Amino acid sequence: MQYHLNGFKPGNYQVPDAARKPYPIPPIEDLPSEIDVLIIGTGPAGLTMARQMSEFADIKTCIVDMAHGPLLFGRADGISCRTIEIMEAFNSSDLVVKETYQLKQNTFWEPDDANPQNIKRTEKISDARDGLSEFTHGIVNQARLHEILIDGMKNSITNLRPHYSRELVDLDIDDTLTQDLDAYPITATFKRSDDAGAGKVETVKARFIVGSDGGRSSVRKGLGISLQGDSADKAWGVMDILLNTDFPDIRVKSFIQSKDHGAVMTIPREGGYLCRFYVEMDSMAKGKRATDIKLTEQDLIAKAQKIFHPYTLDVKEVAWWSIYSVGQRIADRFDNRPIDSSDDVMPRAFVSGDACHTHSPKGGWGLNTSLPDTFNLGWKMAAVLQGQSDPKLLATYCTERRKVAQQLIDADKELSKLIATRPTAGGNLDSARIGTAEIEAFMKRQSGFVSGTSIEYFPSYICTGQENQHLATGLKIGQRFHSAQATRVADGRTQHLGHLVKADGRWRLFLFGGVQDPRQASSDAYQCVDFLANDPSSPVKKYTPKDGDIDSLIDTYAVFQQQDLSMHDLPDYLWPAKGKYALRDYEKVFQAQDGNDIYDLRGIERTNGCVVIVRPDQHIATILPVTAHAELAKFFDAFMIEQS
Amino acid sequence: MQYHLNGFKPGNYQVPDAARKPYPIPPIEDLPSEIDVLIIGTGPAGLTMARQMSEFADIKTCIVDMAHGPLLFGRADGISCRTIEIMEAFNSSDLVVKETYQLKQNTFWEPDDANPQNIKRTEKISDARDGLSEFTHGIVNQARLHEILIDGMKNSITNLRPHYSRELVDLDIDDTLTQDLDAYPITATFKRSDDAGAGKVETVKARFIVGSDGGRSSVRKGLGISLQGDSADKAWGVMDILLNTDFPDIRVKSFIQSKDHGAVMTIPREGGYLCRFYVEMDSMAKGKRATDIKLTEQDLIAKAQKIFHPYTLDVKEVAWWSIYSVGQRIADRFDNRPIDSSDDVMPRAFVSGDACHTHSPKGGWGLNTSLPDTFNLGWKMAAVLQGQSDPKLLATYCTERRKVAQQLIDADKELSKLIATRPTAGGNLDSARIGTAEIEAFMKRQSGFVSGTSIEYFPSYICTGQENQHLATGLKIGQRFHSAQATRVADGRTQHLGHLVKADGRWRLFLFGGVQDPRQASSDAYQCVDFLANDPSSPVKKYTPKDGDIDSLIDTYAVFQQQDLSMHDLPDYLWPAKGKYALRDYEKVFQAQDGNDIYDLRGIERTNGCVVIVRPDQHIATILPVTAHAELAKFFDAFMIEQS
Ligand SMILES: Cc1cc2nc3c(=O)[nH]c(=O)nc-3n(C[C@H](O)[C@H](O)[C@H](O)COP(=O)(O)OP(=O)(O)OC[C@H]3O[C@@H](n4cnc5c(N)ncnc54)[C@H](O)[C@@H]3O)c2cc1C
Ligand SMILES: Cc1cc2nc3c(=O)[nH]c(=O)nc-3n(C[C@H](O)[C@H](O)[C@H](O)COP(=O)(O)OP(=O)(O)OC[C@H]3O[C@@H](n4cnc5c(N)ncnc54)[C@H](O)[C@@H]3O)c2cc1C
Repeated sequence: MQYHLNGFKPGNYQVPDAARKPYPIPPIEDLPSEIDVLIIGTGPAGLTMARQMSEFADIKTCIVDMAHGPLLFGRADGISCRTIEIMEAFNSSDLVVKETYQLKQNTFWEPDDANPQNIKRTEKISDARDGLSEFTHGIVNQARLHEILIDGMKNSITNLRPHYSRELVDLDIDDTLTQDLDAYPITATFKRSDDAGAGKVETVKARFIVGSDGGRSSVRKGLGISLQGDSADKAWGVMDILLNTDFPDIRVKSFIQSKDHGAVMTIPREGGYLCRFYVEMDSMAKGKRATDIKLTEQDLIAKAQKIFHPYTLDVKEVAWWSIYSVGQRIADRFDNRPIDSSDDVMPRAFVSGDACHTHSPKGGWGLNTSLPDTFNLGWKMAAVLQGQSDPKLLATYCTERRKVAQQLIDADKELSKLIATRPTAGGNLDSARIGTAEIEAFMKRQSGFVSGTSIEYFPSYICTGQENQHLATGLKIGQRFHSAQATRVADGRTQHLGHLVKADGRWRLFLFGGVQDPRQASSDAYQCVDFLANDPSSPVKKYTPKDGDIDSLIDTYAVFQQQDLSMHDLPDYLWPAKGKYALRDYEKVFQAQDGNDIYDLRGIERTNGCVVIVRPDQHIATILPVTAHAELAKFFDAFMIEQS
Repeated sequence: MQYHLNGFKPGNYQVPDAARKPYPIPPIEDLPSEIDVLIIGTGPAGLTMARQMSEFADIKTCIVDMAHGPLLFGRADGISCRTIEIMEAFNSSDLVVKETYQLKQNTFWEPDDANPQNIKRTEKISDARDGLSEFTHGIVNQARLHEILIDGMKNSITNLRPHYSRELVDLDIDDTLTQDLDAYPITATFKRSDDAGAGKVETVKARFIVGSDGGRSSVRKGLGISLQGDSADKAWGVMDILLNTDFPDIRVKSFIQSKDHGAVMTIPREGGYLCRFYVEMDSMAKGKRATDIKLTEQDLIAKAQKIFHPYTLDVKEVAWWSIYSVGQRIADRFDNRPIDSSDDVMPRAFVSGDACHTHSPKGGWGLNTSLPDTFNLGWKMAAVLQGQSDPKLLATYCTERRKVAQQLIDADKELSKLIATRPTAGGNLDSARIGTAEIEAFMKRQSGFVSGTSIEYFPSYICTGQENQHLATGLKIGQRFHSAQATRVADGRTQHLGHLVKADGRWRLFLFGGVQDPRQASSDAYQCVDFLANDPSSPVKKYTPKDGDIDSLIDTYAVFQQQDLSMHDLPDYLWPAKGKYALRDYEKVFQAQDGNDIYDLRGIERTNGCVVIVRPDQHIATILPVTAHAELAKFFDAFMIEQS
């Protein structure tokens, strides 16, 4: 798909350039006075939280932003593999895949030995992220990702829509109420900023608040959370441009180091014409902000043109530009509890995304770390509000996500040094060369981080069973379930198993059978299914809501090596009767594919099989032997609330 | 994706069951009094015509239906590979792929030798259509396909919407005007049928009319076109049901022949719970219609239950049912011209889809033949109205599509005999068995027809060059361009070349290079490009609209075997400057992929290459040697109008 030929146009890329209009601004409606979850900010973090909550008819959510409407352009553009996997959980990966520009190659350019005023390509390599996910990371307008999330909210059972033109001006938490789940300890005060309502004040009471309000977060400040780390000393000019050039790698991501004028990173963008340039600016004096730099887009272009020498750079339109500087900073805590609180203290206010950690744009981690923050928090919030899980679950948001943020910040620091602090004067070509090799090595080594696929949560009661990792060496406990394909027994269709883990708050249990025939009542697989279906200590029996379908809390899938199975020979639990008609669900049993065998691909122990428990956020919670019924029960007993 | 667990719900399947609403009925607006193209009927044929015309800002189209709003359920359900390819041309294949239920296997059931009152599986085979297209045929509500087409119209530059509640009651063609392209020879009279406007009469004058008004077409009758063929003597009960059964192949397409009660064909449907049953009814007396048969859904269920013996069939909900009987019939002509008119007589009125040919449901050809009818007509109509092509082009609609319809009807007759007239009484098990083997053989032999991929247009001035078929043995002249992948030179991305052929009225020229280096000015490829770009006799020079981009009439792509190309070493014409900024288009040059080599896959002559010209409807118009400049010019000269 090609777009923007005759100028950049924001909006739905399914609509052709000539007909496309910006995403509409919804009419102003009063804020509700009392809700369960209040979300501040409609960036990737806030919208992901809202999108997740929108799945639950019994939870009242409200999302608010001080902007007058949805974002139209600019900001982040890289959508990592892991982010697309999360969009698949929301059933929206197809649009992201269709609209993104896929980066397949990287090139590196350096001063030419023979003529150091010119740049010269030193390397063209294929992208290191290939093969880490069934999705390919790509480039698309951040606004478009927002729109897809907003459309999902609108289409959901709750028909949730953001409220714009509301600035959070005051946040109060009643400490006497925070440990009472049913109470509304949060009072948030908003000021309307649209013309019609300017100055009008609204107050909302909430059981929980999530601050997804960006780098200068009012929620973070309101909670007295401080940021640690360096403030930025390096500014980058960033611009999305329509251009002509004779630079041969303009449709490939390129790192370009000039001898005297600094560096440029170019990223080809969606639609085939647009291109993003990150232009290195001079270091800033201490205490200065990027906004203090008085530069125009013309300065950025002029700088880029110098770096491009001997290639021409003829800029036809600047769709968006900004001077962007970020320090790598992290909040000392991600919720309102005092540092070192025990898990038993229930948090009521959270910060997420840029509000609690900031990244330089080079690694593409801003958006791609913000969105998984709330993908981690969302299901926990729902489970607690729905009385499914103990409120202590909420404390794991901070422990899990803060470690990840710290790791990414460390990686980001390393990468930023490699890209930005290379010698840009003095003609030291050799050290520029070393820089390039190092960037390449970094990208290879950190490809799992860059793609988001190797993000791993540390051991806890929702990440256990590390002693059984050998039962499935390619499914790392704590990391997201790395999808692979299998054939559905009932109809022969190929299914990506990871795509079964939808963002509906359910847990998934993948039972991988061993060599025993699962049709035999004596087999481990049969016994395990029998335990799940019938044993009084089974988590399915204990924790499934009384009026819910059998798979409404724990959704069990079986994968077998046997190639001659028929659904009707298997226990009922694997093709359960559901819904008001008690219709059979035929989509729960799979067999390994010849030549694309999930047992091989994911290192699953063939003789005895294993059970892999996957959290609602697609991360692997635990791996157990098929026979470990008691351990399986114990895992859920640690945090689930019995239903009666 | 699973839907309909708690009952069938029409509407957008991207919206979950609990929130889904039927597709909205648009408010009534007055019909325009004068338009270019008037389309009667919002079935697959009419909507495809409208969707195609909606791409052109300079053509005024109006589509009208007597129904009160969009279809909600029932009718056809099978979407063939070729239909999905056409949806890809409209940029909408992804939704179809996502929502359809993919059929991967067929089973055959017959009376059990040991106990002939019972049925028994005799065969389970994988679907013969595998591999004919990059898409897999699937099953989805016809209404959903309609909605996707309507959404496409709405999102197009013309923002086209159907007008409902309008019945065509009179059609007049002024014969004195039919040969004047600028005149409005058509006068159509409509009666409003909604409550508010009941009885109100509207008159529309049009340059062309397309009757896509189904089996009882008023347009066909108005034109005095008669149907040939058999009226139906066999009725089938059809129902979409939610059910429970212990029949093991309920999620696989099954042909079931009982000893005493006739046959059933079951087709599992989208969402995992719904299933379509075609139930064989008794033969009808001569002159009777299906609507005369006084049967209820309960009768259908009872009959199916008998056939299913010894398996149970517990029907929980009937989402839709009908008694459906179709003869295989075909109109003697598909436009208003007298039979045996020369091509030089311009047709002004057309019939398409069920209005001119009907098929039994067994082959799934109703929808899948109706939609390509107007996909054939649409681009021709646009080319003529835009002054691009000679009006005689319109006469090829009838010659091309009538032959196809006849072929499909012949195949349909053969299949219908195999399925429906098998001995259903008398216990002749052997002949039942022969029947099954024959159905299977038929399906294998005719898989290209069933999938729609081997539909072929006969030689004519828009289907030439048969003597060069050996230059690309896997790209059959007259058939649709069978897509294969190649790597884009500018950025290394994999691209399905067939997906470049969008329904935008443009012709595509695929230049497959030979062994010579295309960077050498002496090479055939370079010379061919030079001819196209610069020669006064080049069709690009002669026929491209003066204010249009260089690729706005003929969109040229090059595929090379060389693996070390860079766009900037190739002639400008292959990365042309376009649009108001003269931006370079980097998406026109590809290289063959190692291990997935399009030259091998499509039998392309490696030494000298070839030129493949693809029509706007994705069918291959001609294949030429790369050096055949004069022939290339001649091909377009036969029907194009020089632009000045
Ligand atoms: C100007 C800018 C340029 C950027 N450029 C790049 C780039 O070039 N490359 C890159 O990778 N990343 C870039 N980023 C970073 C990237 O966009 C973020 O990492 C990402 O959007 C973080 O998502 P988030 O949801 O945490 O916060 P944000 O996307 O920042 O969203 C926060 C939202 O909260 C709202 N808000 C803030 N305060 C209040 C309040 N008091 N009341 C109500 N609403 C409030 C804001 O209006 C905003 O919509 C840029 C960010 C900004 C702001
Ligand atoms: C009741 C029914 C059941 C079917 N069942 C099956 C099935 O089980 N399996 C299968 O494969 N195929 C089935 N089909 C056939 C399949 O739906 C058609 O082959 C396909 O829809 C043909 O498309 P079309 O666009 O040519 O016409 P249609 O889809 O029939 O559309 C014709 C449209 O024209 C409108 N129209 C008709 N006359 C006028 C008028 N005078 N003024 C204004 N509007 C008018 C109609 O309201 C209708 O919307 C069925 C068709 C029908 C009608």
